[in-house]
Amino acid sequence: MTDMGSRHRFTFGLWTVGNPGRDPFGGPTRAPVDPVESVAKLAQLGAWGVNLHDEDLVPWGSSPSERDRIVARFKVALGESGLDVGMATTNLFAHPAFKDGAFTSNDRRVRRAAIGKAMRSIDLGAELGAEVYVFWGGREGTESGVAKDPRDALERYREAIDVLADYAVEQGYAMRFAIEPKPNEPRGDNFLPTVGHALHFVSTLQRPEMVGVNPEVAHDTMAGLSIHHAVGQALWAGKLFHIDLNSQRIGRYDQDYRFGAEDLKECFLLVRLLERAGYAGPLAFDAHAYRNESAEGVWEFARGCMATYTALAERARHFDALPEVQEALAAASTGELTVTTVGGDGAPVLKAEADSLDALAERGYFNERLDQLLVEALMGVR
Amino acid sequence: MTDMGSRHRFTFGLWTVGNPGRDPFGGPTRAPVDPVESVAKLAQLGAWGVNLHDEDLVPWGSSPSERDRIVARFKVALGESGLDVGMATTNLFAHPAFKDGAFTSNDRRVRRAAIGKAMRSIDLGAELGAEVYVFWGGREGTESGVAKDPRDALERYREAIDVLADYAVEQGYAMRFAIEPKPNEPRGDNFLPTVGHALHFVSTLQRPEMVGVNPEVAHDTMAGLSIHHAVGQALWAGKLFHIDLNSQRIGRYDQDYRFGAEDLKECFLLVRLLERAGYAGPLAFDAHAYRNESAEGVWEFARGCMATYTALAERARHFDALPEVQEALAAASTGELTVTTVGGDGAPVLKAEADSLDALAERGYFNERLDQLLVEALMGVR
Amino acid sequence: MTDMGSRHRFTFGLWTVGNPGRDPFGGPTRAPVDPVESVAKLAQLGAWGVNLHDEDLVPWGSSPSERDRIVARFKVALGESGLDVGMATTNLFAHPAFKDGAFTSNDRRVRRAAIGKAMRSIDLGAELGAEVYVFWGGREGTESGVAKDPRDALERYREAIDVLADYAVEQGYAMRFAIEPKPNEPRGDNFLPTVGHALHFVSTLQRPEMVGVNPEVAHDTMAGLSIHHAVGQALWAGKLFHIDLNSQRIGRYDQDYRFGAEDLKECFLLVRLLERAGYAGPLAFDAHAYRNESAEGVWEFARGCMATYTALAERARHFDALPEVQEALAAASTGELTVTTVGGDGAPVLKAEADSLDALAERGYFNERLDQLLVEALMGVR
Amino acid sequence: MTDMGSRHRFTFGLWTVGNPGRDPFGGPTRAPVDPVESVAKLAQLGAWGVNLHDEDLVPWGSSPSERDRIVARFKVALGESGLDVGMATTNLFAHPAFKDGAFTSNDRRVRRAAIGKAMRSIDLGAELGAEVYVFWGGREGTESGVAKDPRDALERYREAIDVLADYAVEQGYAMRFAIEPKPNEPRGDNFLPTVGHALHFVSTLQRPEMVGVNPEVAHDTMAGLSIHHAVGQALWAGKLFHIDLNSQRIGRYDQDYRFGAEDLKECFLLVRLLERAGYAGPLAFDAHAYRNESAEGVWEFARGCMATYTALAERARHFDALPEVQEALAAASTGELTVTTVGGDGAPVLKAEADSLDALAERGYFNERLDQLLVEALMGVR
Repeated sequence: MTDMGSRHRFTFGLWTVGNPGRDPFGGPTRAPVDPVESVAKLAQLGAWGVNLHDEDLVPWGSSPSERDRIVARFKVALGESGLDVGMATTNLFAHPAFKDGAFTSNDRRVRRAAIGKAMRSIDLGAELGAEVYVFWGGREGTESGVAKDPRDALERYREAIDVLADYAVEQGYAMRFAIEPKPNEPRGDNFLPTVGHALHFVSTLQRPEMVGVNPEVAHDTMAGLSIHHAVGQALWAGKLFHIDLNSQRIGRYDQDYRFGAEDLKECFLLVRLLERAGYAGPLAFDAHAYRNESAEGVWEFARGCMATYTALAERARHFDALPEVQEALAAASTGELTVTTVGGDGAPVLKAEADSLDALAERGYFNERLDQLLVEALMGVR
Repeated sequence: MTDMGSRHRFTFGLWTVGNPGRDPFGGPTRAPVDPVESVAKLAQLGAWGVNLHDEDLVPWGSSPSERDRIVARFKVALGESGLDVGMATTNLFAHPAFKDGAFTSNDRRVRRAAIGKAMRSIDLGAELGAEVYVFWGGREGTESGVAKDPRDALERYREAIDVLADYAVEQGYAMRFAIEPKPNEPRGDNFLPTVGHALHFVSTLQRPEMVGVNPEVAHDTMAGLSIHHAVGQALWAGKLFHIDLNSQRIGRYDQDYRFGAEDLKECFLLVRLLERAGYAGPLAFDAHAYRNESAEGVWEFARGCMATYTALAERARHFDALPEVQEALAAASTGELTVTTVGGDGAPVLKAEADSLDALAERGYFNERLDQLLVEALMGVR
Repeated sequence: MTDMGSRHRFTFGLWTVGNPGRDPFGGPTRAPVDPVESVAKLAQLGAWGVNLHDEDLVPWGSSPSERDRIVARFKVALGESGLDVGMATTNLFAHPAFKDGAFTSNDRRVRRAAIGKAMRSIDLGAELGAEVYVFWGGREGTESGVAKDPRDALERYREAIDVLADYAVEQGYAMRFAIEPKPNEPRGDNFLPTVGHALHFVSTLQRPEMVGVNPEVAHDTMAGLSIHHAVGQALWAGKLFHIDLNSQRIGRYDQDYRFGAEDLKECFLLVRLLERAGYAGPLAFDAHAYRNESAEGVWEFARGCMATYTALAERARHFDALPEVQEALAAASTGELTVTTVGGDGAPVLKAEADSLDALAERGYFNERLDQLLVEALMGVR
Repeated sequence: MTDMGSRHRFTFGLWTVGNPGRDPFGGPTRAPVDPVESVAKLAQLGAWGVNLHDEDLVPWGSSPSERDRIVARFKVALGESGLDVGMATTNLFAHPAFKDGAFTSNDRRVRRAAIGKAMRSIDLGAELGAEVYVFWGGREGTESGVAKDPRDALERYREAIDVLADYAVEQGYAMRFAIEPKPNEPRGDNFLPTVGHALHFVSTLQRPEMVGVNPEVAHDTMAGLSIHHAVGQALWAGKLFHIDLNSQRIGRYDQDYRFGAEDLKECFLLVRLLERAGYAGPLAFDAHAYRNESAEGVWEFARGCMATYTALAERARHFDALPEVQEALAAASTGELTVTTVGGDGAPVLKAEADSLDALAERGYFNERLDQLLVEALMGVR
């Protein structure tokens, strides 16, 4: 297990292994975990790094000197364990002041405080060497749609990200930003609900080159969208700066299950895509153990996330190495999709080719064979 | 009823009032309708225009002379009725050759034929004076995700739109393009599944200024997303070139119900947004009568779409004119969201303001009052 | 407002108006409310009664004497306000011991403690005069399906309800039981996920006549099912012993919005059904104010629930009184569905009538007209 | 491959391998298949039997002599192939006369014709030796809920099944009936939407012992419900008379994918449950090949269904044989759920045990370990 992360940079949020098991219908079932203990334990399990919100490390309300002491102790722990910080982010959802939004609260004072909190938190991320800084707009949304004009909300959202990008550049921080979308929960409808909306939003920023996206498996899955298609669009755009891995059933509350616990086929497609694309950023697990799990069982949860990713990567390599798969991909003409369609031909030629549709309808694409090969490779029976 | 469309440019697809009631489990329940009859009838009901796929008017396989005869007869009908063509589009989903995709078929010959068919259809749209040309990628997707790399598919999709935009410009056509997203059906997972994905895709084109989006209420609703938020993002981006109105329950097959038949509150929010934004494009109803409806009942369906839009627009105006609504909007600080957050203040000032969060948590936003006012205004009891 | 409840017995859970606004991503935004204050305030607003979990009134861990003091004080408040207790229930989900289930926990000791807690709570309900005792199996389910055989779980669930029904009868309590289904949340998959599953479960009990169901609008809606169809099946079976009213969007976390805040048409159909069926049980609002609402705004939330129900009941009466609606119902042959189909005719006659299908396909059912009349009546424009 | 079905009685509907690939947006992509050819081909692949609607074999409108000729030819084919008929059913959805329902049409004449058609079809099923007769109410539902009182619809539904059960008994047919639920599609909302609703409905019949349910994986999955929980409730009630196997993503149109193509974990849980319960009825695949599949590829689809079921059954056996799984099940106290909770103890004992909840909260259930073992066994890496 110790070399599990040798090739992959697996990370865990402090809030994931530290999740105490509270949910809307019941209190915690596990004690809080000291971040220093999490770091030590994750290093032992083969993780490459950790991620954190400001408040995961430094409780809200800490004095500057307490903050410095906590951070110093944490840096020692990082040094001893050899773990890096993959990603940092600001908690802009837990404080009750954010109940109407943070960057898009109707109250301008809240919006300003949110930007100020994010600046402080960016300083912390920089201090800890985070290579990516994530923005998840947990409270940016509405239950009563009439309370916010979505155009105004997006305008304020953009203003906040622009201001913070300027801030990071001015401070000389090397980090890149990544926007994390989510369709709903905790708000009734969140702004930037999917990877697509976030990619578009990035294209409207003043520093679009500095900002990408952080897709989370559970989030697009909540809306029933294909996460591997979403990640595909982000990769195609050169905007996959970070990724949050977990599992989720469609059309439910945010479950944040162990990676691979649901929809193994989509997980396989996602891992295969990441591997083939040469994605080299952190592979962050943003999940938590089931609420009926004990404190010690949390580490089995963490081990499982990495083990399943590693097994899926191996299955994907095996799949692509099978001669029958190569044949089936050829029968599906998969490779032909990489070829330019037009190749310089003009309208008259193309218009004439429309007459060949009847003849082109004859062929099949043999996707049943190909898909069954995937299932059998995934199950290890081929 | 006759002046229903006096202010709004209501349009109907020929395929909507002409829908024969076929579904996956049963054949047609109504006879096909002659487009010329549809035009006459819609004019009588107060519609401003019609929309069409190439094949709605000219059956696939028609000879050039048949095509010309059909088009000429249709133009006479338009002239006599006073109706305009709001939007035209290409049917790239019905022909069996498109079973693996049109612009993103793995078979390059199919992709070329699809572009050729679209060029012919753009010519038809231009001839009929369509101001918007829509692209709905009904077959651009997969059931077996492994059969297409989504990056390749998006690259081919982009190539096709770029080529067709060039074609339209070269021909001197005045039309603008609009991409219509849909999450799934008929494919297992469609590319460009939501308004967000389509907006991002547009930002990657060679002629982004010429291309916008065509949100459809039912489509984003299938994925459980807020359509008024989606349209809000399109308006914010200056990209709402067209809109398809209908109704749908979340998480189901594509129902294409009469506008207002489901989720009246979201319909209210959408209409209010369109009216406040001054959207001046066509209001296209892309819906059809229930399958158990008779041929004559189809026109009650059409009347209902326009009547409900008109009633919602009136309710929205009334709502905003109520003093108690203005008070509730003020209590929710809705207007304050239009004010710039930062206003030139620097990081030190903003960081310091983060300390005011505890104090800012005290206030409420009175969204219950505001939302209940909406419900009561919508029901006409206030 | 004071006579709002004159005809309808509106009730609110203590946990609804007392909801402090905690969610999975943030702490409370409102202070707890003293049940005695809730009772006074609800009486003032026109409610008929209140509902409660044992722990809403008596905090877990109270000594017997504290319990008695709290209950006595509450009974005084009820007497002063004139409010009744419509329904009582046991909190079998908040305590961490229930993390694996209560009646279906894998740990037999937990199951026994759960039954014991329910007995104590039934005593409390009887003491307060609750006419219905509800069982919502919030923790009866799994995240990892392999951890429980569903057959074993249902067997234990049945055992618990049988034992508790015996207990209530033996004590001479007059109350009836009602099972409340929910598809998921807080568990990944709950047992008895829908009204249908609960109705079937009741039919397997030892005292089926004593047990009915408590449908909750939000719960079946989460699964995308029609709540008015579900309530229809419960009424048809004579099993609608109680009902929880609120609102919810399909395919999301449990939102528990104000009744009427979402899907007004389904709310209309539900209220019309309840009114036409002469349902005389309590109309319980199981909802809470938006999290960004202030403490004082909670009472606007409560007022809104009752106002919308009352307005919908009035709209339903008006709808059915419209001559054009009666005509449309006749055109849809709605009344003919009450007529026995066979009427004593034998198989040969019926088999022969199958030949008339082609002729029977001609007619339409005019549901577009009927549905549009509903929309217009609901909006108050007809 | 030839002995694939040696232990399992795999069946395929004639409509599954014969599916021509039509969908709401496009016509057929494959030619119809002669049922005689399907029988021969399925026998060759190792299936045990076939299933059919009346119209799959005898086209609507056939004369009695044509009908007899077709049936005789089919019986010869069955005899030569050695295949049995597992299940027969009536097509009560394709004919346009059923557009408003069959047993629940508002038109009494349609309801009578539907019963007559079902009687004729039951005769055919009996003649072919079908052991189960299925009723799927494809058109029993509404788009406009106001058009039918759900209580009336259920009353007519019950009348029809009661009449048909009498008919089958009077004719001396040995078959049992099974009700197949579905939440929606082709109707907006179907009556008897889930396995739970169908189980309850059966309990209200005059011959409940003769009628069970036919769960279909895709149908309960459309509503996001756990199919293995649903089948568990049916098995618990002794009502699993038949099962339809396929795959589906939650919250979408009815996809009817190859068994195992989606949600392998739920498929594993379902197969494990069926195997452990000793379910001995037919295992019916109610699915079809992707629309972009060729005619020859259809047989790869059929092979895949059986291969995946067989592989999952083998994986389930292996899983349960692993010592570490037995340990994990013990750690989760899974077996303890089979033990009676109360065992004769009285209320005072049980009430006293409620005080032990705080102590009982300490333990964990180690579901992460157990679930990860499942994933690893399913992937063949353990």
